[in-house]
Amino acid sequence: MALAIPASPVKRVNAAAVERLHALMAGDMDRVNALILERMQSHISLIPELASHLIASGGKRLRPLVTLAAARMCGYDGIYHCHLAATVEFIHTATLLHDDVVDESEMRRGQATANTVWGNQASVLVGDFLFSRAFQLMVEPGSLEVLRILSTASAVISEGEVMQLNAARDLGTDETTYMAVIRAKTAALFAAAARVGAVIAGRPPEEEAALEAYGADLGVAFQLVDDVLDYTGRRSLLGKNTGDDFREGKITLPVVIAYRNGSEDERAFWRRTLCEGVQVESDFAIARRLLDRHNALGATLDEARRFAGQAEDAIAGFPQNIYRDALCELAAFSAERVY
Amino acid sequence: MALAIPASPVKRVNAAAVERLHALMAGDMDRVNALILERMQSHISLIPELASHLIASGGKRLRPLVTLAAARMCGYDGIYHCHLAATVEFIHTATLLHDDVVDESEMRRGQATANTVWGNQASVLVGDFLFSRAFQLMVEPGSLEVLRILSTASAVISEGEVMQLNAARDLGTDETTYMAVIRAKTAALFAAAARVGAVIAGRPPEEEAALEAYGADLGVAFQLVDDVLDYTGRRSLLGKNTGDDFREGKITLPVVIAYRNGSEDERAFWRRTLCEGVQVESDFAIARRLLDRHNALGATLDEARRFAGQAEDAIAGFPQNIYRDALCELAAFSAERVY
Repeated sequence: MALAIPASPVKRVNAAAVERLHALMAGDMDRVNALILERMQSHISLIPELASHLIASGGKRLRPLVTLAAARMCGYDGIYHCHLAATVEFIHTATLLHDDVVDESEMRRGQATANTVWGNQASVLVGDFLFSRAFQLMVEPGSLEVLRILSTASAVISEGEVMQLNAARDLGTDETTYMAVIRAKTAALFAAAARVGAVIAGRPPEEEAALEAYGADLGVAFQLVDDVLDYTGRRSLLGKNTGDDFREGKITLPVVIAYRNGSEDERAFWRRTLCEGVQVESDFAIARRLLDRHNALGATLDEARRFAGQAEDAIAGFPQNIYRDALCELAAFSAERVY
Repeated sequence: MALAIPASPVKRVNAAAVERLHALMAGDMDRVNALILERMQSHISLIPELASHLIASGGKRLRPLVTLAAARMCGYDGIYHCHLAATVEFIHTATLLHDDVVDESEMRRGQATANTVWGNQASVLVGDFLFSRAFQLMVEPGSLEVLRILSTASAVISEGEVMQLNAARDLGTDETTYMAVIRAKTAALFAAAARVGAVIAGRPPEEEAALEAYGADLGVAFQLVDDVLDYTGRRSLLGKNTGDDFREGKITLPVVIAYRNGSEDERAFWRRTLCEGVQVESDFAIARRLLDRHNALGATLDEARRFAGQAEDAIAGFPQNIYRDALCELAAFSAERVY
């Protein structure tokens, strides 16, 4: 059972993969961080204050890393991939601020969410600000193709979030709908982040497509594991509360599997807790037991591994180099991570 | 006293100005409306449903009209100004959706706000969607300069909204701060809407600057009158509730003037109702009386007229044509409108 993996050694392996990628891209990432810091400034002090609360609190910076490594793998030797990486992180951050308002989340990256500290109003507006800043940054490399790709990805992300809102508390949600949601809300930005690396490097369409496929599969794997960790993760490693999805009535793949295979009593449990939103303290533990009973988390992790493998395959046609290796390792990490 | 202007004849004059502009730009505006309708579509039906609730409910479409007329005044004979006009309207619509969430408004354009009907969550996400769509549309004319101008305007709008949030319930807000807020939250988009008309027409920087100044002054005049109408307007003409600003503790210019010139008792009234937010039904009528006593609404309208005059002056250097005349008439309308 996937849940039985001992946490500590896995954490070391996981951390090592991301740390190696960070080390490899350290010079570029310094530029990205400097750009992020510079471009989140405003004479309205609440804006950098709120934005830095989230941005400076860490996060794995996976999306900008993907852009940087993809561009370098494609032989890009300029500096504008840093603008694109910062853009991608700004879009992601804007999305997180709005997500936390929509989900009424209280904790992220080990601290109180911005909406909890400054209120929903400020979070909505600073999200808008960062989103605008993303587009300002995006203009600088001078590539209309990049603008087209990232603005399209942003629209798809919103569609995914609305789909998720529609699907919440609806146990009629099947695997197909769930996959459509996570492809849109999560995988679309990973896909765009990877693809623009090829665009800025001036690579041909088939290489753009290969990197887009890599990013999309990586993003799906990443989100599948995210949905597992919401039931199994440790708050100290995740930096957020577990059980958020359960409390919010989100129908993720583990639930879809457990509900499909559940007895009538089990289904009644899911209906009460997720559809009707009637929950008591002990329900989360019961939910975890039911997921275990049907190997719903193990099956979800198997899916994540399958997508991670597909991601590696997607870039197998590129000449081997340290960047391709790092992107492959990142794909493996996305399926095995515990944080 | 400005308030004593009889509503009906003024309404006819007002309506005539905007109707003439609409008639002049009718062919272009049909294209803009078709683009808006086409680009707000999504396979997630809630998105066009919510978006069209606001978009189809009318609104004066002043910002896209400004873009269209500015481009034509500059001799542009292509069709891409329609994309820019639709972009500007999408940015405006996204802003309205988020504004109504932030302000908890219940009525706009004569009907319940989207947040009232579909909730804050959907309004935030569909706002994000329209904002993304705006940038997708913006890419099509292929002008990086346009993208730079409109993404910068979007960031400035968010700054203005955050400033306004900070200034709410703060009677220390002076005229300088108030003007900075409305220049950012309202005038910046009018300025950008006008300027991109010159950009798409390939006009020199001084003409861009003249149109930007026109748009900024028009926007300030427009917002000053908006703030007056929130105290004096008729719900049936405005399509929204009067007194929203008062209830939300917004410190607009009329209040700044009345507070500055008010007695100690009057100041205590403003502190209780706006800073502390303690209001009873009859307070709005008292507020209107206090504004009258200090000619605060009349003085605000005088300011609006001054800015409208400046707007006309800003484009006086362009050769006279029907489009320039229409833009001048629009400036006059912005200061005299009753809806």
